[in-house]
Amino acid sequence: MRRIKIEFAYDGRNFYGVQALKDKRTIQGTLEEALSKLLNEPIKIVTAGRTDAGVSATYQVAHFDTNSTIISTNICYAVNKLLPSDLQVLSSKNASENFHARYSAKQKTYKYFVYVSSHTNPVYDNFMYRCDKDLNLGKMIEASEHLIGKHNFKAFATKSNDIKTYDREIKSINIIQNQKLFTFEITGNSFLYNMVRIIVGSLIDIGAEKYAPSHIKEILDSKDRKNAGKLVPSKALFLVNIEY
Amino acid sequence: MRRIKIEFAYDGRNFYGVQALKDKRTIQGTLEEALSKLLNEPIKIVTAGRTDAGVSATYQVAHFDTNSTIISTNICYAVNKLLPSDLQVLSSKNASENFHARYSAKQKTYKYFVYVSSHTNPVYDNFMYRCDKDLNLGKMIEASEHLIGKHNFKAFATKSNDIKTYDREIKSINIIQNQKLFTFEITGNSFLYNMVRIIVGSLIDIGAEKYAPSHIKEILDSKDRKNAGKLVPSKALFLVNIEY
Repeated sequence: MRRIKIEFAYDGRNFYGVQALKDKRTIQGTLEEALSKLLNEPIKIVTAGRTDAGVSATYQVAHFDTNSTIISTNICYAVNKLLPSDLQVLSSKNASENFHARYSAKQKTYKYFVYVSSHTNPVYDNFMYRCDKDLNLGKMIEASEHLIGKHNFKAFATKSNDIKTYDREIKSINIIQNQKLFTFEITGNSFLYNMVRIIVGSLIDIGAEKYAPSHIKEILDSKDRKNAGKLVPSKALFLVNIEY
Repeated sequence: MRRIKIEFAYDGRNFYGVQALKDKRTIQGTLEEALSKLLNEPIKIVTAGRTDAGVSATYQVAHFDTNSTIISTNICYAVNKLLPSDLQVLSSKNASENFHARYSAKQKTYKYFVYVSSHTNPVYDNFMYRCDKDLNLGKMIEASEHLIGKHNFKAFATKSNDIKTYDREIKSINIIQNQKLFTFEITGNSFLYNMVRIIVGSLIDIGAEKYAPSHIKEILDSKDRKNAGKLVPSKALFLVNIEY
């Protein structure tokens, strides 16, 4: 047995998320089916991130173990022919047996894209969330600073059953404005269920001047989901980097 | 009769270009059908730019004349309900009878998106052209400077029948690199058929070090299409601004 590390990317809009689910088109299920066919043995993969339904990745990592003697760098070329055009492998190589796509990851970076317009722009709308109110960049940046560091992020997570702790560490939040387009770039050690999208929804409320920037600290301290902003749509969220 | 100016945007991937063609799904045809239905009279529009099949616009302008007494700013809301999700109007207002969407335009700006990767990245591939060779930004910028100003751009155009002159003026070319992503931003008074895509294809040849930057001047001076680079795909080209 040896361990293989793959890098891959997907347009998540027509997938039901990463995690394998019976009778659903998922990233894990689609990759495992193609790899099992190629390597002629049942393959189970472990992905670095388990992105939700509709979320895309320009960069994602997984590992799997195989008995196959195929040259590792050839897996990428061969498996792509068995994969659909919205899920493709970027590289494949041998990894040490200690490498674990999820547990070895030190940090992940997500980007969320927003455009401000009173009308739908069909180009932007493919992969951005439309906000119909002007957004105050300075106030969003000020608000975001309350989230940096180690905190209990329970207020910014959708409830799920298997959570041991709501403590997470956000290493940076960069918000970049280019005229009417805003990019939220969030780096952290790991993220709770829906956490990035609820943080962005909450920062948009600050940008739209519904609340003062300090309200973000009140949401955080309350540990209560109902105080945070809305869950913004999945199509505008992209996993863009994983560091080991 | 009064003149109305509309601003609109479209994801061009499922349109056969702007110009109305019998039995084809075009931007002009789709807009005219919706406007004629709304205003209850036959409407003919004049667009600022006639983008090719597959080309998108985050910003495009048209004008039309109507006898309807509808409040001009309401046209936008009403017509969008009659338009498909990949073509939407951003604003509508009264214009002076001297305003002409095409002839009054002083300059237009296009963006072309390229990513460098040895494998298809499904996210980028939706709206970027994949180049499998590293691109030298400095050499592409040096090459692009030969194109600024008034020139005969015959070498950078696909032959078409109704051309009176190949003289055009390029006001600026900005090439921006963000890691493996390149954006080519080209502003000019007007453009020949396929001109932006042939210029980008030629600059990519320079970036890939197939030719020296000065080769762009040789192509220009030759006035011969066969010396220029390839016509890169339409999906990565976006009309982004028109100035009056």
